[in-house]
Amino acid sequence: MHRRLDARAPGFAAEFDRLVEAARDTDAQVSDVVAQVIAEVAKNGDTAVATLTQRFDRIDLAERGFEIGAAEIDAACANVSPELMAALELAATRIRAFHEKQRPADHDGTDAAGVRAGYRWTPVDSVGLYVPGGLASYPSSVLMNAIPAKVAGARRLVMVTPTPDGRLNPLVLAAAKLAGVDVIYRIGGAQAVAALAFGTATIPAVDKIVGPGNAYVAEAKRQLYGRVGIDMVAGPSEILVVADGANDPAWIAADLLSQAEHDPAAQVILITDDAAFVDAVAVAVDALIEKLPTGATARQSWDSQGAIILVEQLLDAVPLVDRLAPEHLELAVADPQPLFDAVRHAGSIFIGRHTPEAVGDYVGGPNHVLPTGRRARFASGLSVTDFMKRTTFLECSAAALAAIGPAAQTLAEAEGLIAHAESVRVRLNS
Amino acid sequence: MHRRLDARAPGFAAEFDRLVEAARDTDAQVSDVVAQVIAEVAKNGDTAVATLTQRFDRIDLAERGFEIGAAEIDAACANVSPELMAALELAATRIRAFHEKQRPADHDGTDAAGVRAGYRWTPVDSVGLYVPGGLASYPSSVLMNAIPAKVAGARRLVMVTPTPDGRLNPLVLAAAKLAGVDVIYRIGGAQAVAALAFGTATIPAVDKIVGPGNAYVAEAKRQLYGRVGIDMVAGPSEILVVADGANDPAWIAADLLSQAEHDPAAQVILITDDAAFVDAVAVAVDALIEKLPTGATARQSWDSQGAIILVEQLLDAVPLVDRLAPEHLELAVADPQPLFDAVRHAGSIFIGRHTPEAVGDYVGGPNHVLPTGRRARFASGLSVTDFMKRTTFLECSAAALAAIGPAAQTLAEAEGLIAHAESVRVRLNS
Repeated sequence: MHRRLDARAPGFAAEFDRLVEAARDTDAQVSDVVAQVIAEVAKNGDTAVATLTQRFDRIDLAERGFEIGAAEIDAACANVSPELMAALELAATRIRAFHEKQRPADHDGTDAAGVRAGYRWTPVDSVGLYVPGGLASYPSSVLMNAIPAKVAGARRLVMVTPTPDGRLNPLVLAAAKLAGVDVIYRIGGAQAVAALAFGTATIPAVDKIVGPGNAYVAEAKRQLYGRVGIDMVAGPSEILVVADGANDPAWIAADLLSQAEHDPAAQVILITDDAAFVDAVAVAVDALIEKLPTGATARQSWDSQGAIILVEQLLDAVPLVDRLAPEHLELAVADPQPLFDAVRHAGSIFIGRHTPEAVGDYVGGPNHVLPTGRRARFASGLSVTDFMKRTTFLECSAAALAAIGPAAQTLAEAEGLIAHAESVRVRLNS
Repeated sequence: MHRRLDARAPGFAAEFDRLVEAARDTDAQVSDVVAQVIAEVAKNGDTAVATLTQRFDRIDLAERGFEIGAAEIDAACANVSPELMAALELAATRIRAFHEKQRPADHDGTDAAGVRAGYRWTPVDSVGLYVPGGLASYPSSVLMNAIPAKVAGARRLVMVTPTPDGRLNPLVLAAAKLAGVDVIYRIGGAQAVAALAFGTATIPAVDKIVGPGNAYVAEAKRQLYGRVGIDMVAGPSEILVVADGANDPAWIAADLLSQAEHDPAAQVILITDDAAFVDAVAVAVDALIEKLPTGATARQSWDSQGAIILVEQLLDAVPLVDRLAPEHLELAVADPQPLFDAVRHAGSIFIGRHTPEAVGDYVGGPNHVLPTGRRARFASGLSVTDFMKRTTFLECSAAALAAIGPAAQTLAEAEGLIAHAESVRVRLNS
């Protein structure tokens, strides 16, 4: 049974704290297994990848080849209906348009001391994109990860996806083609992540690895963080809906369950100022769960991680939102602007009654790869700058160095870094 | 003896590969110790911190108090010479001015379909800044980490620094005061990082932890990454100098040794097109090392990690630079612009003969916290945006949802996410 909290009741603060601290990350003991897989791939390259792929996916890479070639991709795309292809294309177009607005500006200026200083952005050369196989194999994720990389200007975009027993998701391949992925390998798991990080005879190493995956994939990325860049540490989905009593309860129920259906550990929370609406949404949730093919998962999430919080007035939701720092925040209220202005911590905000979170998952434009587990306190959703890096620069004329060099020399000497000081001193005294 | 490579010699590619792959990260077996410290602090809070501080720093926190109070800070500042204080103030002013240019722009737009989409930047609420004690206790690092956080608008900036046997670095406290640090605790090591991540009765938890530290501190940050944000995985310093034969060899020797004196594992490399200059710099390095109080460290670095690479022409340095993706790149050549334009991967670039890297360590303006270990391929130096996060947003009117919602519904159904589809469908059919 989902939790119900009343912000005016005694004990609310402690109860809300428990909600905030709820441990939802699946803490599987995968760390050692993953470390072993990484070591094997680092040492034995393609051979290790092939052995592990045979074991986990029952695929003979020597026979099938590592790469999913153009013919296979084209055959898969031919199976995608025109309606689906049009939807994918609309999504790609809208995602691209939004991300093109994220290209960061360079800076280059000279100050009063005559010092030129600035920074410039350049793309990451090569990006690896992990795409899960099986149930969580989503073409929308391909678009959301690949398009920002292409907009950033990455030269090479490599996709890996497991094909257990040879099963391919045609939509995933269609999305990859649409997004401009350069090459696709039929490998998955920690071994695929390790292959991307170290490179093998077949698979060239990449600089950054992004994309969702199971606990093994996530742990492999975490362990390889630093050797390569990664997108983020991701946890189960979450949605926080702030809604007034004027909403159709069925709409809000669908919104809550749209995240609950992802994962039994998904956190779905409604905050409202209307006591009658609390009951109405709970009834609507139960009714919709019955009809969902994903109902079993949604039921687990709603019962174990679901919560409805009643507040005196809607603006009282703001500090609660900021504590939870939710991945997705819906503001389904008559006047969302004051709430929108006041909230500080959220991955992405969906404003008004006609903006269900799901529209943002596919065709809104903003990225659906977002910080979970309260990480919106310090982290952002995926963007073009995740596939770029900023190089700063500095240029002193002799006169500029004469102006600011002595202070550098003084500080270097105070820090006991005498070669630092010397490198300034020799130039000042020349 | 440092290595010498000739880009025109057979076997150069393999030799250069070894330079690129040189393992320089100190791989101490600290992981288990750190995991234990983190678990202790998570469980026992202040008590654990006090016990560990007594053990490692021989400080009784019950007697001395966790906090370094205003009186102690003011007393320390009174010991700083006016010349040093002026140098610190110049550094702070210049660093602040440069970082103020990094404040990112928001975006808010409505497209042809009537969909409003955008993003806005907000500061991280609270930041923890680690400052090492002992030899590597640098006031310049305080400024470089604290000022971007303040420019970003962080509400609370907490510093931790160990004071072994009660020793305080007055300059570090002066820099903290100058940079606007809100509170300073006399704790260090993995226990300080854990206290900042989890919070204790005395020390409120922060959202992001930055700053340099020893292997234990670095490992603690790595293990807590995800629970809190961290700045980066940092390794030993490195400098790559591209210089023509018209430079004074003593200048270039000082530049190389300015990084070598940091760490026996620092990597210092010169690339030049002048064979005579190779010898001249090697002689100048040996001469300067003899005079340095930091000579022993610099000697270890130069002998084990130093290299001079001779190229046919200066532009041949570009692919080598990009492979090494150095933390610091100096372009000490007559015409640096073509090299500057061509290089893609470097943490920070120092242009021309009168821009020794050290000036950027202190007073240039750009940040001196930079990616090491070839991470400039995918990572950037510390900036204002490291203390901010971007929240995207989306707003559909009923008409806008009618325009783009059907595609979202189609894709959600194809992915088997029926509650997603339902949340759009109910609104389209209303």
